[in-house]
Amino acid sequence: MKQRLFTPGPTPIHEAVARSMAAAMPHHRTEEFIECMQRTQQLLRRVYRTEDPIVLLSSSGTGAMEAAVVNLTRPGETVVHASGGKFTERWGELLRVFGRDVREIPMNWGEPVTPESVHDTVRKTHATAVFVTHSETSTGALCDLQQIARVARDLGALVVVDAITSLGAHRLETAQWKLDCVVGGSQKAFMMPPGLAFLSLGRKAQERLRDNPTPRYYFDLRPALDGVPTGQTPWTPAISLVQGLEAACRVLVDEGLEQVWLRHQDHADAVRAGVEALGLRTVSQRPSNAVTAVWIPEDLSADGLRQWMWETFQIKIAGGQGPLRGRIVRLGHLGAIDEADILLLMTAFERALIQQGFRPPRSVVDVVAERLQRRSPARSTP
Amino acid sequence: MKQRLFTPGPTPIHEAVARSMAAAMPHHRTEEFIECMQRTQQLLRRVYRTEDPIVLLSSSGTGAMEAAVVNLTRPGETVVHASGGKFTERWGELLRVFGRDVREIPMNWGEPVTPESVHDTVRKTHATAVFVTHSETSTGALCDLQQIARVARDLGALVVVDAITSLGAHRLETAQWKLDCVVGGSQKAFMMPPGLAFLSLGRKAQERLRDNPTPRYYFDLRPALDGVPTGQTPWTPAISLVQGLEAACRVLVDEGLEQVWLRHQDHADAVRAGVEALGLRTVSQRPSNAVTAVWIPEDLSADGLRQWMWETFQIKIAGGQGPLRGRIVRLGHLGAIDEADILLLMTAFERALIQQGFRPPRSVVDVVAERLQRRSPARSTP
Repeated sequence: MKQRLFTPGPTPIHEAVARSMAAAMPHHRTEEFIECMQRTQQLLRRVYRTEDPIVLLSSSGTGAMEAAVVNLTRPGETVVHASGGKFTERWGELLRVFGRDVREIPMNWGEPVTPESVHDTVRKTHATAVFVTHSETSTGALCDLQQIARVARDLGALVVVDAITSLGAHRLETAQWKLDCVVGGSQKAFMMPPGLAFLSLGRKAQERLRDNPTPRYYFDLRPALDGVPTGQTPWTPAISLVQGLEAACRVLVDEGLEQVWLRHQDHADAVRAGVEALGLRTVSQRPSNAVTAVWIPEDLSADGLRQWMWETFQIKIAGGQGPLRGRIVRLGHLGAIDEADILLLMTAFERALIQQGFRPPRSVVDVVAERLQRRSPARSTP
Repeated sequence: MKQRLFTPGPTPIHEAVARSMAAAMPHHRTEEFIECMQRTQQLLRRVYRTEDPIVLLSSSGTGAMEAAVVNLTRPGETVVHASGGKFTERWGELLRVFGRDVREIPMNWGEPVTPESVHDTVRKTHATAVFVTHSETSTGALCDLQQIARVARDLGALVVVDAITSLGAHRLETAQWKLDCVVGGSQKAFMMPPGLAFLSLGRKAQERLRDNPTPRYYFDLRPALDGVPTGQTPWTPAISLVQGLEAACRVLVDEGLEQVWLRHQDHADAVRAGVEALGLRTVSQRPSNAVTAVWIPEDLSADGLRQWMWETFQIKIAGGQGPLRGRIVRLGHLGAIDEADILLLMTAFERALIQQGFRPPRSVVDVVAERLQRRSPARSTP
């Protein structure tokens, strides 16, 4: 049987990425690899929509989040972040571990932080940096990043964004929205294995990291930033994954970023139409196009649904984390997912519910198939 | 043309590793991947020759070195390390960045630290930890790790070893030599791409990291250690590289570690016999079997030799680093290298020298081929 990943990371590997990673591996101090790094840099900037330098790190996304914290803020500095989800709260954990003066905006799980609350908290605390999660993977909530960045910037605060599940799945305009630092990871919309993370560094972020006294070594962004123009990294990079990243960015750029975002929008809309047809509710009222978190009625078993889909079809969906454990399932639909995948996912999800005795008010297949056919007008045929 | 890597990392990818990394990628929270992690753990312990838990990190080897520093020592703690090579000195850089009281044993480049100097320095300074580089990649020097560990342990100091280029290339007995922490990396004798690092943690090391106040997050070994029995990692692991690591360890264990060490010994001996036949000198008098660093006569160009071998044959050898830049070349012979590779390497190296007007006193091919035929008596036929 074939395993089918519908998780919000890792996501299915794109065939072009797999081929590229399986190619003969060059040494990292050769012209060939340096050119690969430089092409990847140019392509990544198009995905990020910026001319800012983008640093590659051999680590998971959490490593790049740590790099942002220890390079862009100082011990004791007043910084703002929100609660309301596992990854949103990870910013808080990181900031506290490294001794920052952390002001948390309390949010319920599933509610993304609002521009108003960021504005009020930054103004009241005179915070100098705001750490935001664009798409919160644990709840499927999406914040209004553009407006949050605007209000934070107007108050002089640095804007640092965890865009690990949103980059490539949602419109994200690093330059236009003046985002100082945007963190991404390989195993999401980039259709790659995990192991590589990246972050963009705007001019203000670059200035901050130069004279920052925080002890750091592996994640010191000074040598990493200096290496960007020459296609070099301070430590041996994860070469095969960099080769995969070039291929992944090429796939995204060739499809066109606007088209990639619309594709994710259409897939997410179809999933949400299916959830509604089932009479179920999504966790977030401001949903991300990367993952849909769905409340499971109390008389059913969320873990049982997941287990049945896995054992019957080897379809992998995610469960709840933290306070949502056992109460929700999360349907991932980002990366190398097509319309047939979405149809299969929702059909299998319906079968799993029926198998537990749930009676759907209407056929999910009809609704999902119909919604998939009504593609976004601006979207070219897939 | 085919690229041929004779660098001390990255090294050529073994075919079984390449196949394994190209296999369909499982989600990391599945039974299937957990079993892969657990099998890899058991195999790695056989390579390390220990029953200690071994933590996997998605990072380069430098990341695992940082993890050792920030988890096993405290700010202000007195620790010993040596100079005398780029990676030996990296321990010092890391220890200083994180505010340890560093006592450096001064060594010339190419001279490995001695058990006597470790004994004297630890006794005089009452240091509580010693950071050692087993095989120094920048000079090809090998220290007497077994004796160094004995004297350090007798004085109550923790023994932390960078074995990144020695693990799998040289006898290294983690349990028998009572090494508290041994750091390894994927792109060396493991015949894999870079991007994965690992470290073993003995009982004393495990105790130290539990109540260590050093701020750390991505490299915090507490959750990493807790995850070892269940095959889980705190952050999303570099899944495809873990699949490759299982295959790599299987190849090493199937060949037999003793045999793997003898193979590296035979290859290194043949290279050194060739260097001697050329009338050239190695940088270190206590040479590592992973890499041979060779002084290049002043009237020749070391970089020119490397460039000619690359342009003519796409054979990649390494140059000098730090004070040895431009004065040496480094011939890497660890990992998935066979006897034909060694013969080719030395033949091409001789051609490069001749091309610069050098007159070898005798034929390198004869010497190398003859030495390759006299395999170690205990070694089975390759």
